[in-house]
Amino acid sequence: MDFVKMHGLGNSYILFNLLESTDEMGDFSYLSKKVSDVNFGIGSDGILLICPSKIADFKMRIFNIDGSEGKNCGNGLRCVAKYLFDHLYTTSPRFTIETLGGVVRVEVEIDEHELVEFVTVDMGEPQWIKMSIPMIGDPFLPAIAEPFSIGDEEFEMTCVSMGNPHAILFVDNVDDVPLEKIGPEIEYSPLFPERVNVGIVEIQNQREFKYRVWERGSGLTMACGTGACAAVVAATLTNRIEKHQQTTVHLPGGDLTISWDQQNHVWKRGAAAYICTGKLQMEGDLPRSRAI
Amino acid sequence: MDFVKMHGLGNSYILFNLLESTDEMGDFSYLSKKVSDVNFGIGSDGILLICPSKIADFKMRIFNIDGSEGKNCGNGLRCVAKYLFDHLYTTSPRFTIETLGGVVRVEVEIDEHELVEFVTVDMGEPQWIKMSIPMIGDPFLPAIAEPFSIGDEEFEMTCVSMGNPHAILFVDNVDDVPLEKIGPEIEYSPLFPERVNVGIVEIQNQREFKYRVWERGSGLTMACGTGACAAVVAATLTNRIEKHQQTTVHLPGGDLTISWDQQNHVWKRGAAAYICTGKLQMEGDLPRSRAI
Repeated sequence: MDFVKMHGLGNSYILFNLLESTDEMGDFSYLSKKVSDVNFGIGSDGILLICPSKIADFKMRIFNIDGSEGKNCGNGLRCVAKYLFDHLYTTSPRFTIETLGGVVRVEVEIDEHELVEFVTVDMGEPQWIKMSIPMIGDPFLPAIAEPFSIGDEEFEMTCVSMGNPHAILFVDNVDDVPLEKIGPEIEYSPLFPERVNVGIVEIQNQREFKYRVWERGSGLTMACGTGACAAVVAATLTNRIEKHQQTTVHLPGGDLTISWDQQNHVWKRGAAAYICTGKLQMEGDLPRSRAI
Repeated sequence: MDFVKMHGLGNSYILFNLLESTDEMGDFSYLSKKVSDVNFGIGSDGILLICPSKIADFKMRIFNIDGSEGKNCGNGLRCVAKYLFDHLYTTSPRFTIETLGGVVRVEVEIDEHELVEFVTVDMGEPQWIKMSIPMIGDPFLPAIAEPFSIGDEEFEMTCVSMGNPHAILFVDNVDDVPLEKIGPEIEYSPLFPERVNVGIVEIQNQREFKYRVWERGSGLTMACGTGACAAVVAATLTNRIEKHQQTTVHLPGGDLTISWDQQNHVWKRGAAAYICTGKLQMEGDLPRSRAI
């Protein structure tokens, strides 16, 4: 079984190309658990299946390392878009990919070798009234620059939903904030009935932020694409930057460039990279001749 | 750059075949760190280089995930032995492999497809006087069935060196013992100036043990080959089993069969398995055409 391993900002996935296969019904949950295990399998955050679609140009299915099927994944979507264009499944730099979370528009930019260097993904419309987060309080009011105390420390918090909830805190220096301590305190605050992702943002200048994230259910991670979008939306809502500009967000795993366009859509641009191509040689798929 | 990923008891390695290459001087430390990283690389416990040898049939070099070069690794050696025989580099089931720790004798057993199913490795001679562990006390006396207290609990401890030091505790049920608690207490006991690996052993019957390990410097791991050997030596020294028999040791990562022969050598027999074959597509090694 052929595969490609790719990563986007250190989020790594095993891709399987099912475009020429009619079988979308394999036990992909089992496959994802098996190949994602670094000890007995290849090692990854999950698998990405590239399939034909009836409603978009292509379809992506994602299975996490625990075997559950995911709705969408920005880092995975960039990997799939790069794979599709690099392998000539499309010659148009703009195309659509169906996911469990809806159809997503993507746009690729190529380098001097005609390989995809950057992928820009339409992340949809942000929301920020409390019922959309969700957050306790007047459901129709937003939480913009609200004070939030932890111990003796006072923070300024702005909450934004990009389909998932983010609490964004602007700070002077992201490396001085003990995110492993304040992250879980905010994630489990009674203000957020469905818990929340916690991002801290340092504005370096109008065009560049530093961002670190505490992800709901995962803790400290190297990159969170929706969080980088939420950071730029929150900076715009608090008048820290102008609307409709491009802002580069530096995450521990790499950079993303975010823009919030006139049609109220947030676009996220970033890189994706190949790690290896290969053939699985696992149990039930063992070599049958000495010279494999 | 072609590779094979294999594992022995869940200890996984990326193998590079340098038998047809004359260059043994690459920056393998950098390569190991890079490909062993599960986020930006393939993911493994390290890399194994298969090289020509002037003093044995083959040579194996091992680099750990931190880039350091290792002396030897039982699980890695089984992977290399299986690869060499399966790929017809040798047709003899007995051959020798040079490592930084010395030349090792190996023996393979094949299945109905003529692929290697089990590899038996000569682990050398055990030692058990205190100076060989090393352990505080009379340097020429052994530590066999010595009492060792942790809090209110009393254990019976036997110490064996298989090149590295092991403290073996016989218990009624390995799953009832809080190894994550007693492991570090024994590892850092002033009795062991160079610290010690801690193994707990449950004797199921004369031919079968259950074994769990706290590895010096690594903590709880799924398998420790020298520890399984030390468990069988310690059981023999305390008259729990007869000498020169085969004993199967069940580790969390899989099974090993250990025997201590009449020439005072300990032999370890276990499986190794392929995970995948592949080609690296990493930075500085990128595809140069659209259709990679």
